[in-house]
Amino acid sequence: MDLLSQKFAKLGTADAPGQEVRLHISEAALSLRGDKIHDRRVDFSHGDVDAFTPVPAALDEFLEGFRAGGAQAYTEYLGSADIRSALAGRLAAFTGVSTLGADNLIITNGTQGALFLAVASMVARGTKVAVIQPDYFANRKLVEFMEGEVVPIDLAYFGNGSGAGLDLQQLEDAFKVGVKVMLFSNPNNPIGAVYSAEEVNGIARLATQYGITIIADQLYSRLLYSGEVYHHLSAEDIDPNQVLTLMGPSKTESLSGFRLGVAFGAPHIVERMEKLQAIVSLRAAGYNQAALRTWFAEPEGWIEQRIALHQAIRDGIVQRFAAARGVRIRTPQGGSYVFPRLPELTVPLGDFVHILRLQANVIVASGNQFGTRSGDSIRLNFSQDHDAALAAVDRIVEMLDRYRR
Amino acid sequence: MDLLSQKFAKLGTADAPGQEVRLHISEAALSLRGDKIHDRRVDFSHGDVDAFTPVPAALDEFLEGFRAGGAQAYTEYLGSADIRSALAGRLAAFTGVSTLGADNLIITNGTQGALFLAVASMVARGTKVAVIQPDYFANRKLVEFMEGEVVPIDLAYFGNGSGAGLDLQQLEDAFKVGVKVMLFSNPNNPIGAVYSAEEVNGIARLATQYGITIIADQLYSRLLYSGEVYHHLSAEDIDPNQVLTLMGPSKTESLSGFRLGVAFGAPHIVERMEKLQAIVSLRAAGYNQAALRTWFAEPEGWIEQRIALHQAIRDGIVQRFAAARGVRIRTPQGGSYVFPRLPELTVPLGDFVHILRLQANVIVASGNQFGTRSGDSIRLNFSQDHDAALAAVDRIVEMLDRYRR
Repeated sequence: MDLLSQKFAKLGTADAPGQEVRLHISEAALSLRGDKIHDRRVDFSHGDVDAFTPVPAALDEFLEGFRAGGAQAYTEYLGSADIRSALAGRLAAFTGVSTLGADNLIITNGTQGALFLAVASMVARGTKVAVIQPDYFANRKLVEFMEGEVVPIDLAYFGNGSGAGLDLQQLEDAFKVGVKVMLFSNPNNPIGAVYSAEEVNGIARLATQYGITIIADQLYSRLLYSGEVYHHLSAEDIDPNQVLTLMGPSKTESLSGFRLGVAFGAPHIVERMEKLQAIVSLRAAGYNQAALRTWFAEPEGWIEQRIALHQAIRDGIVQRFAAARGVRIRTPQGGSYVFPRLPELTVPLGDFVHILRLQANVIVASGNQFGTRSGDSIRLNFSQDHDAALAAVDRIVEMLDRYRR
Repeated sequence: MDLLSQKFAKLGTADAPGQEVRLHISEAALSLRGDKIHDRRVDFSHGDVDAFTPVPAALDEFLEGFRAGGAQAYTEYLGSADIRSALAGRLAAFTGVSTLGADNLIITNGTQGALFLAVASMVARGTKVAVIQPDYFANRKLVEFMEGEVVPIDLAYFGNGSGAGLDLQQLEDAFKVGVKVMLFSNPNNPIGAVYSAEEVNGIARLATQYGITIIADQLYSRLLYSGEVYHHLSAEDIDPNQVLTLMGPSKTESLSGFRLGVAFGAPHIVERMEKLQAIVSLRAAGYNQAALRTWFAEPEGWIEQRIALHQAIRDGIVQRFAAARGVRIRTPQGGSYVFPRLPELTVPLGDFVHILRLQANVIVASGNQFGTRSGDSIRLNFSQDHDAALAAVDRIVEMLDRYRR
């Protein structure tokens, strides 16, 4: 197999969250037990922007952008200068990093776009990259596509510690053997774990000691449940040239349909990302960029209410899974994912995911996507209609009873 | 310099069209002659969507997409299935390729996105790629970023032949020495030359004989001036697996602010592009995709009128440059670019481009961007306000008189 065939063979999307519509699974090939449970479909593979709708001003700002015409259609590759300037101020306030300016911030095609540009700007053939597992499924794929080498760092997320479960000694061992870049999400996707002060501080300290550059995917860092404290890596005692932070309004703020994200921090990395964005897509869609004017400028109490509604769903889901025999679940501290570990089943996990869709009208993502040791877990994005989500989890639990070994 | 530094050093954007706002040029460093000519700024680096506005229904369709909510926000990675299906039918009619279907068409982040995904799907380390010069400036950059090897094919566009100026013998020689992929735009950017029947047929014949895959960038293939005949490579006698065609509504249709493009053809390439888009940006912005419903479905006569208005500007610009001493210009047959060759100047071309901006309030792109032998030419996108464009060309001609050697 030639180099390109090898690279693309690793990039399979058939089982990726959101691609279920492209699957053509034969029911006959699955060992189905019992009848279908007829109820409203819930697609836990991504958030439901019909249940949690975009902040209304986002559309108004888009329309303003459209009316502005050419000036908004043809922004710089980095994105509109005045929008970047406004965002830099708000994100400086949010993260506590005062050095953030418009020139070390890039507007991208979603946070996915920021992640791609960041990895492609830092990882080449043979670059060793510390990748947490489980973590966002694209992290590993991106490193491999750039021909980097993934050095997995296990998260002991069911451990007794107060943090996400990072073993700083394991991380240091990886840094010692030539890792150049570390990539992690905080809150973690798919677990919803938030890294503790000790963990974030430890990452900063080791990165400084070993000269590692960190990509901190903070997509969910605004969606923190009551009592949780968040620590921005960029606000730690670390050279600003060693940290790139990714965020975006696709999740908590439900602006996913606009495809917007940002990356900010290390100036030399942002500069590379700009050059690369110029040949990848020129820029994030011009009119859409205007929707970012609403970001971190939502109406008073809007975010707080959104968090409270998500917390109620989280609590209902965690309670249901925790009560199910053989299921183990960690309560997410942030974000809108749960990652329950399932009991041993009579069918492979991949089949069970198909069975859930066919028999229970529920779509979930297989844990395999998120790490090599997560083949016993499923991921649910619970940013859904409250009642529909809880009913769907009841159906999953019923299906577990049918297929439990 | 390490591998990444080398790759990014080649990706310079400082002089790229549209980035002038990021330049900080000192007037004192330039050898300025005479005073500023005060007149309305014309930015020929891209089309003016305030002069040629989007088809009005595009915004309506976007709003319909926004109202559709989650279904439109979270399309498949390929893009919305029903929009792809509609486009496949229209593009089959346009190109005369009846085998085109929804599954071998991908909606991308602009035609730039299609080009990136296509090159990254076909070019790896050491892949030899035939690249026309002059041609779109990103072609070479993309091949080099993927570590492919550019094999330049010169277009003798001032030649006596009836076509664009392709030397089929030179192309065959390149194919003989290991070229695997060929990349070209038709109508050519920056010249506006349209390839003749003999040229398109010759490319198809040689590609078949040597097993070459062709990326045909047909972004401007709807904007053909009166009397011109266009030949779609995909409609030639060639294996459909060897042709990928790129198009998009950013130019003639002025939808650039929506960042939409498409690629269609070779199924195995479209499949790779889908996998890659999943990690590059997930998808083209969901709501925006809905604007494609207007594409190839514009009101009766809308395109024809748009072409006639561009033809009038073209004729005025070509007349002015042709009358200027020492300037050589080919009349574009399609698209909205002219690429005049300038007389010898007292300053380097890069300085002259800055001088045009500072003294004449005119922005043009330096020919260096488009090919190694084009350092004596400038590119103008004349999709502009008619009178402003002609006045700006008069200013360029006056500046040529000031700086002529």
